[in-house]
Amino acid sequence: MTQPTTGGPPGAPLVVGLDLGGTKLLGLALDPGYDGSEPVAEERVPTPAGTEAVLDAMAGLASSLRDQVQATGREVRAVGLGAPGLVDRAGTFRFGPNLPGVVGIPVAAELGERLGLPVVVDNDATCAAWGEHERGAARGRNHSLVITLGTGIGGGVTIKGEILRGAYGFAGEFGHMVVDPDGPECPCGRRGCWERYASGTGMGWLAREAVRTGAVGPEPGFVAEAGGDVEAVRGEHVVAAARAGDVGARVVLDTFADWLGLGLANLVNVLDSEIVVVGGGVSEDADLYLDRTRAAVRRHLLGAERRPRVPIVPARLGERAGAVGAALLAALRT
Amino acid sequence: MTQPTTGGPPGAPLVVGLDLGGTKLLGLALDPGYDGSEPVAEERVPTPAGTEAVLDAMAGLASSLRDQVQATGREVRAVGLGAPGLVDRAGTFRFGPNLPGVVGIPVAAELGERLGLPVVVDNDATCAAWGEHERGAARGRNHSLVITLGTGIGGGVTIKGEILRGAYGFAGEFGHMVVDPDGPECPCGRRGCWERYASGTGMGWLAREAVRTGAVGPEPGFVAEAGGDVEAVRGEHVVAAARAGDVGARVVLDTFADWLGLGLANLVNVLDSEIVVVGGGVSEDADLYLDRTRAAVRRHLLGAERRPRVPIVPARLGERAGAVGAALLAALRT
Repeated sequence: MTQPTTGGPPGAPLVVGLDLGGTKLLGLALDPGYDGSEPVAEERVPTPAGTEAVLDAMAGLASSLRDQVQATGREVRAVGLGAPGLVDRAGTFRFGPNLPGVVGIPVAAELGERLGLPVVVDNDATCAAWGEHERGAARGRNHSLVITLGTGIGGGVTIKGEILRGAYGFAGEFGHMVVDPDGPECPCGRRGCWERYASGTGMGWLAREAVRTGAVGPEPGFVAEAGGDVEAVRGEHVVAAARAGDVGARVVLDTFADWLGLGLANLVNVLDSEIVVVGGGVSEDADLYLDRTRAAVRRHLLGAERRPRVPIVPARLGERAGAVGAALLAALRT
Repeated sequence: MTQPTTGGPPGAPLVVGLDLGGTKLLGLALDPGYDGSEPVAEERVPTPAGTEAVLDAMAGLASSLRDQVQATGREVRAVGLGAPGLVDRAGTFRFGPNLPGVVGIPVAAELGERLGLPVVVDNDATCAAWGEHERGAARGRNHSLVITLGTGIGGGVTIKGEILRGAYGFAGEFGHMVVDPDGPECPCGRRGCWERYASGTGMGWLAREAVRTGAVGPEPGFVAEAGGDVEAVRGEHVVAAARAGDVGARVVLDTFADWLGLGLANLVNVLDSEIVVVGGGVSEDADLYLDRTRAAVRRHLLGAERRPRVPIVPARLGERAGAVGAALLAALRT
């Protein structure tokens, strides 16, 4: 069912992909036949505050990429955008927890008018999933689950080679799957959402909690990494301490790995995916926890010993996955 | 996308559907254009113990239904079977928690040979979901989530009007989604599976737990319903006591409703379904808890106030849903 978009001849029109994050906006231009290597052009700018400024920044970045493409004698035929939140099927950005004040914006129409190009908008994690599915670690798989671990947990699902968008385009909100109703409060208003544990933010919380509950000694290496302040501990301190051989950091990472595996198994029990791809910033340190996550998934998967093993692999496209996927979705839909 | 199977002319071949449960085997014969009313023939027998006996019972029931159909001058052209466990795409029953000892049986091939008819096998809850989708409460919806509440929790998902089967045919195992890793032990070996709380079995556990923790008074009506023995309390005693106005039973049902809503919201966050259908034996008392479940889903759904409301409705086909869906799947696939 997977039909990779074929590249045109040299000189054929390119597509631009934008990935709008809470802190930065990444853009790139690529041939629809892109193979995962270097894009034709790439640029990033900080994400400004406010709806108009964000629209200006996206239009400016897309224009700049188009200028770079045109300088090589080629054209851009469409723009894809991955946006961090709920995007409906009409390309309206409904709501994004990390972009306060940006609500109900018809992004596809607005950007399209400014650029004079077709614009396709989708959820950023959906775009990243599509990038990994088409040109990354899930290439050639029809049923994939791609999880993006960063500040929160995003992701996307492909079924029979197509992105699962759901009835209204909101599918794939994994991070707020509740895995412990008595767990820590989540900014979303619930308790015990999966991303309270198994994201970058979650890794920091697990570390601070491990100190509070005495699961690790009173002075673990990761607290030293954070300048001696327990409340300042974040995921990056745990990773750094683990790489330096800190036993406490190892305990935290094991707990993190188990929570990650528990949620992945919940999803595979529902979706019966044939591969799980773990991406996002936190996946750069997958060597520290992914083996244990694999074991946890196997432990939590119903009838695991009687079904084919589900490979759990790190993503391949790195931080470009969202922009690559957005560009490829634009190529597919325009 | 939904294409209801059209009924043939009067006298056109019928399909037989079987629903294999842990205690009983239900079979019916119907026209592929079945409208949800009375089937042409219907019969049930107790489920015997042991693989051979189960195969004999299924073949016997299908033959009996075929005899009844032939007596009216019509023919049976295919048989569908819903089986309680993991069924792979080749029609092999891999594993069923409620049918110990019945493992790795090529049911489709075995039954097909005995009957001389094409046989299609799928998971029983998947069949029930297909029945409700095609001829029940989710008719006309392309993205539905059907949950079956009984001893455990089963269910099925439709996406773009098709059953989600997943990479290997194992999709839709909702009951073992872990919603509290410190929760009660589950026979599957994990802790805090959703069906420990939100099934018929779960309702009984919640009631016993409510007595143990003092969440209800020392002598709630549901204990009296169970003959005064707390350990004997089951879901049916809670329901009976609630109907008699017992305050303790109301507390238990509210907790049950919240757990049901929590898991449904987890699933809708992932799948973005446009309707949720609640079926199975426990759904016969949906008037006692479904309003509160609706509120819980809304509370747990990401961005609930900015997305279309998801109707949560009781199933329509009752205990026939699995057999109807199995028959319709047989009509579709043969």
